[in-house]
Amino acid sequence: MARRGANQPSVGGYNEAVVLDQIRRAHGHSRVELADATGLSAQTVSNIVQRLLDAGIVEEAGRTSSGRGKPRTTLRLVGSSRYAVGVHLDPGLITVVVLSIDGEVVARHARATPRAQDPADTVAVLIEDIQAVLSESGIDRSRIVGLGIAAPGPIDADRGIVVDPPNLLGWDRVPLRDAIAEATGLAVVLDKDVTAAAVAEKWVAAPGGAPNFAFLYLGTGLGVGLVVGDEVVRGGSGNAGEIGHIVVDPEGPSCACGLRGCIAVTCAPLPLVEEAERRGVLEADRESDDPTRVDAALTRLVHMAEDGDERARDLLQRCTVHVARALAVVSNLLDVDRIVMGGPLWDRVGPTFTEAIPPLLDEMRVARGVHPLSIAGTALGSDVGAIGAACLILDEALTPRPTSLLVPSA
Amino acid sequence: MARRGANQPSVGGYNEAVVLDQIRRAHGHSRVELADATGLSAQTVSNIVQRLLDAGIVEEAGRTSSGRGKPRTTLRLVGSSRYAVGVHLDPGLITVVVLSIDGEVVARHARATPRAQDPADTVAVLIEDIQAVLSESGIDRSRIVGLGIAAPGPIDADRGIVVDPPNLLGWDRVPLRDAIAEATGLAVVLDKDVTAAAVAEKWVAAPGGAPNFAFLYLGTGLGVGLVVGDEVVRGGSGNAGEIGHIVVDPEGPSCACGLRGCIAVTCAPLPLVEEAERRGVLEADRESDDPTRVDAALTRLVHMAEDGDERARDLLQRCTVHVARALAVVSNLLDVDRIVMGGPLWDRVGPTFTEAIPPLLDEMRVARGVHPLSIAGTALGSDVGAIGAACLILDEALTPRPTSLLVPSA
Ligand SMILES: [Zn+2]
Ligand SMILES: [Zn+2]
Repeated sequence: MARRGANQPSVGGYNEAVVLDQIRRAHGHSRVELADATGLSAQTVSNIVQRLLDAGIVEEAGRTSSGRGKPRTTLRLVGSSRYAVGVHLDPGLITVVVLSIDGEVVARHARATPRAQDPADTVAVLIEDIQAVLSESGIDRSRIVGLGIAAPGPIDADRGIVVDPPNLLGWDRVPLRDAIAEATGLAVVLDKDVTAAAVAEKWVAAPGGAPNFAFLYLGTGLGVGLVVGDEVVRGGSGNAGEIGHIVVDPEGPSCACGLRGCIAVTCAPLPLVEEAERRGVLEADRESDDPTRVDAALTRLVHMAEDGDERARDLLQRCTVHVARALAVVSNLLDVDRIVMGGPLWDRVGPTFTEAIPPLLDEMRVARGVHPLSIAGTALGSDVGAIGAACLILDEALTPRPTSLLVPSA
Repeated sequence: MARRGANQPSVGGYNEAVVLDQIRRAHGHSRVELADATGLSAQTVSNIVQRLLDAGIVEEAGRTSSGRGKPRTTLRLVGSSRYAVGVHLDPGLITVVVLSIDGEVVARHARATPRAQDPADTVAVLIEDIQAVLSESGIDRSRIVGLGIAAPGPIDADRGIVVDPPNLLGWDRVPLRDAIAEATGLAVVLDKDVTAAAVAEKWVAAPGGAPNFAFLYLGTGLGVGLVVGDEVVRGGSGNAGEIGHIVVDPEGPSCACGLRGCIAVTCAPLPLVEEAERRGVLEADRESDDPTRVDAALTRLVHMAEDGDERARDLLQRCTVHVARALAVVSNLLDVDRIVMGGPLWDRVGPTFTEAIPPLLDEMRVARGVHPLSIAGTALGSDVGAIGAACLILDEALTPRPTSLLVPSA
């Protein structure tokens, strides 16, 4: 992840972030409890809380009595004090959200990604949507901490560039971060879609959640966001999470990579729809391979399966076997505690995947006798990419880390 | 990783570990330079150095003059002050080393793993070898910080149990850590072979080395040790690093997992040797699938290739393609900066792999246009597993971490 831009409201400082994170996650702590939980001195906590109160980021929520001593004042985050914008560019769908500091979506816009010949046209649409959402939300610009973009990989994270995603035709090293920063005047970060989804899941997780998890992102392409030891895995250039050429069907169609039956040619939406058309389950009447048309065809296939069509069901079941095989590779490699699934396709495939994948996957896990694996759909819905993009900003600004704070101490 | 045992010499304390790590890696720092490098106060550094001098772990190495002010005394680690024992149990080879605190192998023993029916017999051999190496080394027990075991997975890290590795026949939940701790009186840790290899590579790496790397371990089985963000990846139960069922040859032999052409049935030593026998490149005269006989056959195959036998060469080339495909899955998933290769087979396959794999792998990397990947053989030789097992102890004892120090402050 890398950033560019200006206009960041101050919420920073390492100890300040420690206290703020505790207030956010704990709900209703007093200053004394914050000092206990953070290990900071009462005086330090008191000073920080005063700064946060002055900045309007925290407010006094009420008084609580522990039975002995004088009652304590509890503190809570002011959701309306700071916001982040999240932009999710999927080849099939553009989603923009405004997220409050306490994780509520306060404004949202979604539309099919235009079939532009020139990436500049798509960038113009993104900017238009961002400005529309911001202006509809009525939020004062001074309260917007920054804007996160979730994009398909490969990306050049250091330079904020979308390199050449296989499903975004015509995109070749587009400097998306800087384009958005210039148009909006906001601090902008760019990360991969799968990484954003993992950050979202980590951001909303209760304290003590799974320290090692994979987020299976289901969109126009499939990928995984990874969290290892409570830290998001980005890799050396922000491109971690590619699973497209894991072979899941050795008898499957051949792939440009030289193998056969890779994820990219079996269970991404396009090859799944193509297979349904080859088998005559879907009519081969699509006008193009445009992601929105493919998505519509996939939706038909899911509805047919729900209505009892055996052949449609078989195809989706076969897809769950393939996805489970890819997840087995990921979980055997990383010995994760948890797999979360979500993304733009989740509202369609969720029920089938939730039922079929856990038993298939458990059968294939090397550590199955030693280590349970929990598998669940995301609680964040199909907007997880956009929410995650906004969380990139909140996570950077509000998570205590020795390095990489978004803003200097107030 | 988990441990059990007693008798640990004190080297700990967080700040002490920070100073010691700096002395170890920097070579020839003075107290002033240590304070600069660590951010600790001159007084704190001075107190810690005095304790380390008193304990004999550090010594004054000489005096250096910077041109102005009085000359400074440089400090260095005393290699002979502390040692760790490393035990590598590969299904084909048992290796025991004693490693000094500065990373020198001061004693070593290796033998073919006995073809025992009962795991207890193999454990008895391990204990015998450990005691022989310790007694031959002549090192006082009080200087042994602990003993690390590198074993094939799956393991139950919390309980120190070797679960049921596919190549260790008859092993079923063997409590190896406690057995060795009881027999030796040492503090013992158990980890996977691949993890130990990655820890070894991290331990000897120069400061500023690749923060994200994979260690391809080539033994009776193939696996990878992972380091992400400068931290070793163990996963939820210590079982990270399994790659056996990544499909690398969709036309390959079928595998018990239900797929075809997995690593486990194509490029592990046994299937490779079997394929050579099937093709008539090797005579099918092995008496058994015992790992040491398989290893001998593999050695013959490598020698034939070196002597110009085309069919032997083809087989090894084919193997490099398969291995490169598995490494592509790993590097696409984790976007690593570096791949290191080593393990018991490395002295045989090193030249072929070093030449063939980099160009094959680069072709398959999604981030190839963004992020260079360095690929190299380990500098630690075929003993990397045993050295890594000892490094598990040194790393735990000497690496500054807020948590998980081996011993309390002196
Ligand atoms: Zn492929
Ligand atoms: Zn297999």
